[in-house]
Amino acid sequence: MSDIISPRVLKGFRDALPALEISRKEIQRSLEKSFENFGFVPIDTPALEYREVLLGKGGGETDKQVYSFQDHGGRDVAMRFDLTVPFARFMAAHAAELVLPFKRYHIAKVWRGENTQRGRYREFYQCDFDIVGTDCAAADFEILFMIKNSLEKLGVRGFRIHLAHRGIFNAFLEKLGLEQEGVEILRTVDKLPKVGEDKVMELLEPLTGSDKGALILKYIRAEKTPAQTLEKLTNLVGENDPSLQRITELFRLVEQTEIEDRVILDPAITRGLDYYTGVVYETFLTELPELGSVCSGGRYNNLAGLYTRQELPGVGASIGLDRLLAGLEELDRLSGKETTTRVLVFNMDDHLMGHYFYLAQELRNQDIGSEIFLESKKINKQFQFAERKGIPWALICGDEEKKAGKVNLKNLVTRDSHEAITLAEAVAILNK
Amino acid sequence: MSDIISPRVLKGFRDALPALEISRKEIQRSLEKSFENFGFVPIDTPALEYREVLLGKGGGETDKQVYSFQDHGGRDVAMRFDLTVPFARFMAAHAAELVLPFKRYHIAKVWRGENTQRGRYREFYQCDFDIVGTDCAAADFEILFMIKNSLEKLGVRGFRIHLAHRGIFNAFLEKLGLEQEGVEILRTVDKLPKVGEDKVMELLEPLTGSDKGALILKYIRAEKTPAQTLEKLTNLVGENDPSLQRITELFRLVEQTEIEDRVILDPAITRGLDYYTGVVYETFLTELPELGSVCSGGRYNNLAGLYTRQELPGVGASIGLDRLLAGLEELDRLSGKETTTRVLVFNMDDHLMGHYFYLAQELRNQDIGSEIFLESKKINKQFQFAERKGIPWALICGDEEKKAGKVNLKNLVTRDSHEAITLAEAVAILNK
Repeated sequence: MSDIISPRVLKGFRDALPALEISRKEIQRSLEKSFENFGFVPIDTPALEYREVLLGKGGGETDKQVYSFQDHGGRDVAMRFDLTVPFARFMAAHAAELVLPFKRYHIAKVWRGENTQRGRYREFYQCDFDIVGTDCAAADFEILFMIKNSLEKLGVRGFRIHLAHRGIFNAFLEKLGLEQEGVEILRTVDKLPKVGEDKVMELLEPLTGSDKGALILKYIRAEKTPAQTLEKLTNLVGENDPSLQRITELFRLVEQTEIEDRVILDPAITRGLDYYTGVVYETFLTELPELGSVCSGGRYNNLAGLYTRQELPGVGASIGLDRLLAGLEELDRLSGKETTTRVLVFNMDDHLMGHYFYLAQELRNQDIGSEIFLESKKINKQFQFAERKGIPWALICGDEEKKAGKVNLKNLVTRDSHEAITLAEAVAILNK
Repeated sequence: MSDIISPRVLKGFRDALPALEISRKEIQRSLEKSFENFGFVPIDTPALEYREVLLGKGGGETDKQVYSFQDHGGRDVAMRFDLTVPFARFMAAHAAELVLPFKRYHIAKVWRGENTQRGRYREFYQCDFDIVGTDCAAADFEILFMIKNSLEKLGVRGFRIHLAHRGIFNAFLEKLGLEQEGVEILRTVDKLPKVGEDKVMELLEPLTGSDKGALILKYIRAEKTPAQTLEKLTNLVGENDPSLQRITELFRLVEQTEIEDRVILDPAITRGLDYYTGVVYETFLTELPELGSVCSGGRYNNLAGLYTRQELPGVGASIGLDRLLAGLEELDRLSGKETTTRVLVFNMDDHLMGHYFYLAQELRNQDIGSEIFLESKKINKQFQFAERKGIPWALICGDEEKKAGKVNLKNLVTRDSHEAITLAEAVAILNK
């Protein structure tokens, strides 16, 4: 084998080296723990599905981003490009086996062959959590409350969840006689953070005229307090509007659970998607607003209509795991650890190797990650190894110490040394 | 949208419902914890790679099982079919950035379009762990020791790790003048557990003659103790054989760490693959030997030769996660839980919903998984919900209890009831 093949990866793909993968796993485990604590259970679906199932019967221009091909059996298949469509298919297939309302989470990779921009990959993680089978306000609130709790558990400090309701905006447009232009107006309004009020007004005018355009701009402005914003919306759409009642109910729960500092009633959050039919959420890091929303979602009134006639209303959100990881990295909040090892057991003599396995295992049994320097090398090489890997402690035991039932423990950062102590004493120091 | 698309999945693929996925995650988390405690770090590689990188430049008949296609850029790509080839590519690409010896684990899905037998899927998990960059005996032993510890941590009780060394068998064949027939003999000997000694002898005779065939059968028989097997092997190949010295060294470590009851020196374990060059391992559940090996591996002297001229010797093993899961299910060792929730907070009155969020969160803060019954439904519906989901406790709080700062806690299994207690008292009962 003299011809070497270049060990390259595809454009838009990357290897995860230990420092990245350790951080990613820390985040994923924290989220899973949060979700499970709320009674959300994990599911999984295949990475590969029938093309028709993922893309529907049409499947035209918009599907260029999807990796699809014919398998060995001549079936048209595609790799999943999100976790929402497979979840809809999953619910249609399994609703009868599940107890409703069904709360699930799913953290997995998806693939999109889109053009790669800075920080965008063709393979990335999605992290979705949903409550399906109920249309109640408490479910809308639970998703909001979970976003808050999950991010706080992750150690994310400054963030705000922006909340709005598609139905209020629709009722408002109806009052203005602008239902027909709704989609176009939504798209225009969505540009507000990027282009500013003047530009949005300029784009709205041909659609709505200048008076109604001004009212739309007034509508989407967040007032100083949620109460003031609610009052303004009530004046604009009338207090009997059911969407307004829903959002009022949500803010009552926000107050009762004392999370007002985390939530903003922000009518400008309209989420370009036609998909949502009720409340919508977006979440921004206060220190990195330009990162965009790290957790978005909302209510949809018919999840699985493509696959079943059973109506399945739901509400959910999705954490942009890669975006959040990038944000936390920028804020220097990731451990950046290249190892989970706390103690390196030095190899002072190959004949003591059995004893080193015993010592390391005793530490592991106390939940102290430990590894053994396996090779016969000079002691300065072993110190170098620990230093390069960022292992903070050295446990050193030669023939003499073994006979005396003792070890030496060295902190490689502070250079503190504890000589001829028992293993129990070493554990006590390591647990301090 | 009146045409319904059938929510089916591809043949050989399946959805993971909560009971399966909860068990799978429990196993994965336990393994990850074990590996990390040994200083093994996680990595990840893309699901999709250049076809040439995964399959080499030939790529003929044997690659039929691989999902491969042309992407939008006209590149020949393939989905990974194992974690070994991507790891070899990874090491060739990143060896300079890593500290050697490098210890990694990787738990991820792979895909093979093979014909589906009972219990075999086209999408399944692999779980690999390896030490790369050293040829020392302690590394061979560490993999063995990790197999033992990881399986014990998983709660797997009866199992034996079968150990052998390819080099000893090769030296033995050389003595017999049968090096040329080596591969064919290995394949034949591998059939022993399935077809028995007589059939193997019948197959060996045309290759080796009957005298040498009898010696080969003598060679591969495990004696009563490792010491007796070692003695027999020494007689057959001579004590200066380096492979024999290696296995002797490993058994010294097996004795020193007192894990003799877990390890069998079994010369019949030859692992059909040409890939391994040193020690080889297979692991069988004593209660389910017919399941086959649940953890196999060995030493290879040149991991990444396809991609780099740097020699990277290594040793590792792979746990058959799906097979192990099937085995544990058969032995009734899986929790089979459909929920991780321990307490259902009942909804006695929508106006108390804010208080329910407070109560549930207090329980979660004590690591007691809790969910709220979100909808307005009769209390018997709420009991039914808890029962169908297998939630063991009910926390019930109406207006009166709220005013008194009390709750009622009911065990839904034993029907024990604790009325008008404080939340702290409830937590104490739940933590008992």
